[in-house]
Amino acid sequence: MEKLKPRTLSGFMELLPAPQMQLERMMEILRETYALYGFTPLDTPAIESAEILLAKGGGETEKQIYRFQKGDNDLALRFDLTVPLAKYVALHAGELTFPFRRYQIGKVYRGERAQRGRFREFYQADIDIIGDGKLDILNEAEIPSIIYSIFRRFGLTRFVIRVNNRKLLNGFYAMLGLSEKSGDIMRTVDKLDKIGADKVRTILLDDVGLTDAQADEILRFIAITGSNAEVLAKLEDWRGRNEIFDLGLEELTAVTKHLGAFGVPEENFAVDLTIARGLDYYTGTVYETTLLDHPEIGSVCSGGRYDNLAEYYTDRQLPGVGISIGLTRLFYVLGEQELLNPDLPTAPADCLLLPMTEDFSAAVRLATILRAAGIRTQLYTEQKKFKAKMSYADKLGIPYVVFLGEDEIARNVCSVKNLRTGDQVSLPVDQAIELIKFGISALQSGSVILEK
Amino acid sequence: MEKLKPRTLSGFMELLPAPQMQLERMMEILRETYALYGFTPLDTPAIESAEILLAKGGGETEKQIYRFQKGDNDLALRFDLTVPLAKYVALHAGELTFPFRRYQIGKVYRGERAQRGRFREFYQADIDIIGDGKLDILNEAEIPSIIYSIFRRFGLTRFVIRVNNRKLLNGFYAMLGLSEKSGDIMRTVDKLDKIGADKVRTILLDDVGLTDAQADEILRFIAITGSNAEVLAKLEDWRGRNEIFDLGLEELTAVTKHLGAFGVPEENFAVDLTIARGLDYYTGTVYETTLLDHPEIGSVCSGGRYDNLAEYYTDRQLPGVGISIGLTRLFYVLGEQELLNPDLPTAPADCLLLPMTEDFSAAVRLATILRAAGIRTQLYTEQKKFKAKMSYADKLGIPYVVFLGEDEIARNVCSVKNLRTGDQVSLPVDQAIELIKFGISALQSGSVILEK
Repeated sequence: MEKLKPRTLSGFMELLPAPQMQLERMMEILRETYALYGFTPLDTPAIESAEILLAKGGGETEKQIYRFQKGDNDLALRFDLTVPLAKYVALHAGELTFPFRRYQIGKVYRGERAQRGRFREFYQADIDIIGDGKLDILNEAEIPSIIYSIFRRFGLTRFVIRVNNRKLLNGFYAMLGLSEKSGDIMRTVDKLDKIGADKVRTILLDDVGLTDAQADEILRFIAITGSNAEVLAKLEDWRGRNEIFDLGLEELTAVTKHLGAFGVPEENFAVDLTIARGLDYYTGTVYETTLLDHPEIGSVCSGGRYDNLAEYYTDRQLPGVGISIGLTRLFYVLGEQELLNPDLPTAPADCLLLPMTEDFSAAVRLATILRAAGIRTQLYTEQKKFKAKMSYADKLGIPYVVFLGEDEIARNVCSVKNLRTGDQVSLPVDQAIELIKFGISALQSGSVILEK
Repeated sequence: MEKLKPRTLSGFMELLPAPQMQLERMMEILRETYALYGFTPLDTPAIESAEILLAKGGGETEKQIYRFQKGDNDLALRFDLTVPLAKYVALHAGELTFPFRRYQIGKVYRGERAQRGRFREFYQADIDIIGDGKLDILNEAEIPSIIYSIFRRFGLTRFVIRVNNRKLLNGFYAMLGLSEKSGDIMRTVDKLDKIGADKVRTILLDDVGLTDAQADEILRFIAITGSNAEVLAKLEDWRGRNEIFDLGLEELTAVTKHLGAFGVPEENFAVDLTIARGLDYYTGTVYETTLLDHPEIGSVCSGGRYDNLAEYYTDRQLPGVGISIGLTRLFYVLGEQELLNPDLPTAPADCLLLPMTEDFSAAVRLATILRAAGIRTQLYTEQKKFKAKMSYADKLGIPYVVFLGEDEIARNVCSVKNLRTGDQVSLPVDQAIELIKFGISALQSGSVILEK
């Protein structure tokens, strides 16, 4: 039979077992932490009607979307988790209780041009809080505090969650008589990090059509830096000139204060007047998160407050706030930068059980006991030389090998070898369990990410 | 703006938060148990090259598959997790260590005719053990013992894992001079449960072209029943007439013996000569699992032993054994039959924290302490009447409400109300944590499934 060359499509992440285990560990931290904050898990279909997904329209999305016919149906793969959430909330609004807090970790699809570190299928890990008509400002502080908590549990310390407020920006542009152009201006200012202040100024003058005075005022505004208290103090200079600005300043001040109460240290969040998020639908607080040692990656976690989640599907006013971690990309970058902790066990099992007798019954029973005690146990019964069996454990990085021979069975013990130290002892089963559990728990105490 | 009617495609499961929570609990049991047996998690793309997925060809698959073009690429959504596994193992064989044990819980896609209880997007939860050239028979007993363990953890007791062996069947047909027709015969016999013995006989005579004597012998064979020991004893009558039959009988005997050693009680597994699995690629032990009170559902978990996993992609001989739980369908049926335990908490939080002061700082700090203690806490700060806040907790089924007012803050306590009993007490935080954790752990002690 002629063979077909096996291949995985370009732009699709497919991991070997060890890195997959590290990704799973990150997902578990996400699930656990999101749940601790009272978010319910949600799972929506990867396929939706194309009409539903493209309700908003828009150029880039439409070009990148995977869209196809099946029978008479015009279908598409979701390109984010927000549009399906909007549909879900509009469709099930009568059965949901608001504020509705959900997390979703799922794959989304974008047929982007293939390039290093860009994926066509990737995980997003989203949380959103949706209110019915209103939503308290505290939620806008809680969302980044959750991200702080997750990143710390990942093992990261060198990151900053940058916070700004769209009302503040809109109010500011209104003062300058530039309300109509605020969208264009924000999209331009958003590029500050990438292209620098001079080029931003050039675009503001040439493309957006501002006067020199207007451009200067904007550049002065976005150049405000310092501690969060300092930035907020400087913003007081503009207070009283525009209601929206004042409202934005109050929100930003409240979010900053609450973030402190949530225990987020000042080095991990910064009021940053340059960020705006390119998307039109944010209306209040906005977030971006950057890794201090890897600013070139851009934001690894972004989101914000919006006034109207499901406006394409319902008249009901559903304001919300949410944030999304680009998990596949983050994981890829961490791997590239060699930041994934190599000492964490990635083996499929904590112990490899080697029966040294022809009859496996005693070994099968021991495996059952070890598993009942929570020890991930692989019973190895292939007919191989002893050396090959040990090499199997070694290659997979299985920390313990347990031997069970006639002698052990007769003495009601088993022999436990620690493959990292080479130590071997014979112990009654209950003591062997303690030994292995203690060792495994020590091995797993490290974090997924090790900063350099 | 005109609104688009929100909808979810027919044949796609989209759950409300409470049932989603129950499904998540089942997935967690699957992940935990698979891991305990030393299986590594795997995650392959949902999209593959159509050529790769359709390497085997075959009518039904090709009709049902979601296939589409993107640019120059002929793509398709995976219709099971086995073909992607075959590709994965063939592609990465050099980097894997054999036996390779992996689990995968993922969505697969089949554009079937929409009908009640049939899904076009559904979860499969698979385990497979792949050997390099050889694989010990013990694996063929371990696989169903894992299913036993999972079903018991789900809360099921009334199920039977039915076990047979293809070599036994092939050898038997060879004795009758029917080797060439064994595929047709097995596919017919496989329908015994659905259509009854008379119709099976008719098909064997009319369509398969057997003689009366041959059909009678087959019906006598598949009518063998009794305890596992009795069935195996009756099969001894045929021993010595065909080598393949003898080998199959030895394997079946070994699997039965090992299943006992794994602690699977006889009422949960049965040697059943009528099952064959319709798929050609099984070559040894085969499994089906039925719920005793719901035989009409058919098998909820099936699999078997195969000799050549990746034959379309590589010359390397990769025998294996695997089993697949049709999770979405199983979950749907459990819901329909009202077998899901309604007493298990499905709320997004263990406790709703209500600040009774204008300043939320103390409440924010308390929320952080509760979360650090592992209590899923929602801080509720919306401006609503007290009754609305209590009704929110009630509707979501949140078991505890914690109040924090000036008085509590001054006395360094918090007030904890158990919404199921109505009891309310004021306690120092560490005691409140103990109380809530104890109560939650009691609530969660039930199983996902409650048999009637």
